[in-house]
Amino acid sequence: MARFLALRIALSISAGLPLAASWAADPPPPAPAVDPAVLARIRDAAMGDDWAYQRLADLADKVGPRLSGSPQAEAAVGQVAAALKGAGLKVSLQPVKVPHWVRGAEEAELVDYPGRPAGLTQRLHLTTLGGSVATPEDGITAPVLVVQSFDELKAHAAEARGRIVVFDHPFDQFQADNGQASTAYLSGYEYRVRGASAAARLGAVAALVRSVGGADFRLPHTGVMKYDDDAPKIPSAALSAEDAMQVERLARQGPVSLHLLLRPQTLPDVDSHNVIADLPGREKPDEVVVVSGHLDSWDLAQGAIDDGAGVTSAMGAGRLLASLHLPARRTIRVIAWMNEENGSRGSQAYFEANKGQIAQQIAAIESDSGAGQPLGVMVHDTLDSVAALKPVADTLAALGANAIERRDHSVGADIEPLEHAGVPGFEPLLDVRRYFHYHHTAADTLDKVEPDNIRRQVAVLAVLAYYLAEMPEPLPRLPAEVDKPAKP
Amino acid sequence: MARFLALRIALSISAGLPLAASWAADPPPPAPAVDPAVLARIRDAAMGDDWAYQRLADLADKVGPRLSGSPQAEAAVGQVAAALKGAGLKVSLQPVKVPHWVRGAEEAELVDYPGRPAGLTQRLHLTTLGGSVATPEDGITAPVLVVQSFDELKAHAAEARGRIVVFDHPFDQFQADNGQASTAYLSGYEYRVRGASAAARLGAVAALVRSVGGADFRLPHTGVMKYDDDAPKIPSAALSAEDAMQVERLARQGPVSLHLLLRPQTLPDVDSHNVIADLPGREKPDEVVVVSGHLDSWDLAQGAIDDGAGVTSAMGAGRLLASLHLPARRTIRVIAWMNEENGSRGSQAYFEANKGQIAQQIAAIESDSGAGQPLGVMVHDTLDSVAALKPVADTLAALGANAIERRDHSVGADIEPLEHAGVPGFEPLLDVRRYFHYHHTAADTLDKVEPDNIRRQVAVLAVLAYYLAEMPEPLPRLPAEVDKPAKP
Repeated sequence: MARFLALRIALSISAGLPLAASWAADPPPPAPAVDPAVLARIRDAAMGDDWAYQRLADLADKVGPRLSGSPQAEAAVGQVAAALKGAGLKVSLQPVKVPHWVRGAEEAELVDYPGRPAGLTQRLHLTTLGGSVATPEDGITAPVLVVQSFDELKAHAAEARGRIVVFDHPFDQFQADNGQASTAYLSGYEYRVRGASAAARLGAVAALVRSVGGADFRLPHTGVMKYDDDAPKIPSAALSAEDAMQVERLARQGPVSLHLLLRPQTLPDVDSHNVIADLPGREKPDEVVVVSGHLDSWDLAQGAIDDGAGVTSAMGAGRLLASLHLPARRTIRVIAWMNEENGSRGSQAYFEANKGQIAQQIAAIESDSGAGQPLGVMVHDTLDSVAALKPVADTLAALGANAIERRDHSVGADIEPLEHAGVPGFEPLLDVRRYFHYHHTAADTLDKVEPDNIRRQVAVLAVLAYYLAEMPEPLPRLPAEVDKPAKP
Repeated sequence: MARFLALRIALSISAGLPLAASWAADPPPPAPAVDPAVLARIRDAAMGDDWAYQRLADLADKVGPRLSGSPQAEAAVGQVAAALKGAGLKVSLQPVKVPHWVRGAEEAELVDYPGRPAGLTQRLHLTTLGGSVATPEDGITAPVLVVQSFDELKAHAAEARGRIVVFDHPFDQFQADNGQASTAYLSGYEYRVRGASAAARLGAVAALVRSVGGADFRLPHTGVMKYDDDAPKIPSAALSAEDAMQVERLARQGPVSLHLLLRPQTLPDVDSHNVIADLPGREKPDEVVVVSGHLDSWDLAQGAIDDGAGVTSAMGAGRLLASLHLPARRTIRVIAWMNEENGSRGSQAYFEANKGQIAQQIAAIESDSGAGQPLGVMVHDTLDSVAALKPVADTLAALGANAIERRDHSVGADIEPLEHAGVPGFEPLLDVRRYFHYHHTAADTLDKVEPDNIRRQVAVLAVLAYYLAEMPEPLPRLPAEVDKPAKP
């Protein structure tokens, strides 16, 4: 009821503007729907505040790795909830049942290859992929089949049986350096996620993928993998790029055999939580603009860029608006999602809880592309409402973050169900050229984050969230069930 | 005897040139002491040949890590000796007794720190330093004292007792990027080598150093450490830069404790070898120009840049001159040194065997700065004989490798005893801006080596070695016992 009333007021304000303008011979420009001075004030306050970076330092240094189901993940929930409560937001914990996959021993050795000095073996650097089953307790020893692609696997289908298939698909850093980092990533991601089942269908006993990332510091990159229902489950891990290249070089010269020991465990699901923190709307408290990042991380590092930077920047946006005493027309809801990395259970739980009143979800922002310099905003928008964001772009121009880029697909893994149900989706557009150097590796640590970029990201998120929550009329909905592949 | 005769011929040729010149009104330039066409032929042949790179690939991929005393080190001796024999050189193995230090378990955890969620600990990435003693079987748990320098340690001397001292000395990559990589390295090297004893003298129970290197990929850098006689021996390891920074950040906020488990072993010395391969001189076979690199490597990686690149380039120079049927006036002796990294026993053995006839050691070249692009030659030379290398520079100008830079200290760890005894020392001058990104880490792998840089390095070494062995008169000796610190 309150919502219906508020909507009518909004419509009348919006409708009234052209009418007022028609009274003058040389009409003044229409009064802006959201006061630009307020947007500028939010931006400038963000640039003078390190609260979000301090929260990131706390999360990274004091909790550290926080894979879903781990005690660290629950410690992160507690730390973040307390910080948001202290910042004056209305905090609640939304129960989420999450998977509990635990890395175990992981070792690999070259045990035979052309030119091997008698008795010698060589250790390979690798990391088990999230969700993988284990090898037997004493491992697997088998010859390898090295391929660069699914097509090459198909061409060698008859040779896969009994072997360890190695997908040696290189990461295209040139592409990443030139505005196509996601494309470069997705190209390798396919092998990481689907490689094991593709190999298993041909009788392979394990699957190794070359790590998906561009740096050359012998870092294995972990990440989720999935089993198809029609294939046996075989163990799967990511080799460092260097080790994949070595195996490939040796295999070109003759038969190569590996010993592989991977001992992860999938334990029973665990009770966990999304952290939800509201800044209630002053006119339409039931209408919600989500601003979010994910709280869980992989287990190899602090998860400072994936996604500590995103989640603490979203927290910083909420706290900033609270501290400025700037409640918007609608509710701004900070969400620290649980389980983005290996299950999206937090995302599902929120969607399930809200799908009955999906029209109240006005917009959803997720930041999950690291801590590079913000360049603007990505908008999932199949209609053309980019123009409506001009005041946001104008405000952010002072930071060089005024690009508004349309995407015709979901822009955030956790907001994807909302987007599919018609909620306009947004993500900060960041410099991601080096993001996949560190993504899902042991090197995703706090020192990778430039504090000034967090200030800038808070500015982008706070200005955008406030604007979306303050607009007299919400942006148009997306057509429900836009059936596009999600952003990884 | 033969040597004395040859020397007289050389002197008479050299002395005859000005005399000949005085006969003409407009004298032709003196005939060059070494035919430039031959030097150019050597250079060009090197640029068309990948034999050295193939040897590097064999060494890196098929043997891999080869720390002194390991079976891998002996496999490397066998592989390299066979390759040099196959290339037509006269190969011998010089016995060397080497230390046998073996890395064991190495783990560290933050077990207490300000803001620690109850029950949680965090794993630190580190690697034991070569030569370190072990912790007790169940490790050490102790509070840390973080310092940036020996001066700061002194200022906090009273706080060191019972603690784990962490030397958080950052690597100056800006300096490394601007022509001072060795200076940047030596600045941290001091803490790696001497930190443990400095801390132990104050009662510390262990010493950790921030890794000496410039990249930010959470790689611990190993390397040798040494104990002073007047200090208790305490365990010592290198943290990755990221982990050192985390410990420092936390320690700024309050007490931090670590659990540290390092279980290396020092086993009895092992019989090993320098590989020596001669291309006998056509006139003065007893006079020797050494061209060398070291065969041993640290145990974390393939040792492709340290010093696979150097040793195989030296091998390539010898093989190239053999294949061109270009015996020089003097013997060119390829040496693959054993045990440069943690003892220099190969260097000592060669010096001991030759010190009685040290005058026959005419010049010594060592390449041990990786696989960057060659820019010229470094000359250890307290007199001014740089001008004598002009024909070498002229020949290498086509490769942009014509810088001849004087150094007033030893230019190679293995040739240092020779240099101290008066033998002129040389090292290729390479682009080392990224050398310390990989040095002594798990990422020192074959892919870091650009094959073209190996061709160029072979060209530099072959032209220089041939020139030094062919000059009618050798370069002037260094003053014996130039007492300067060695290059690390």
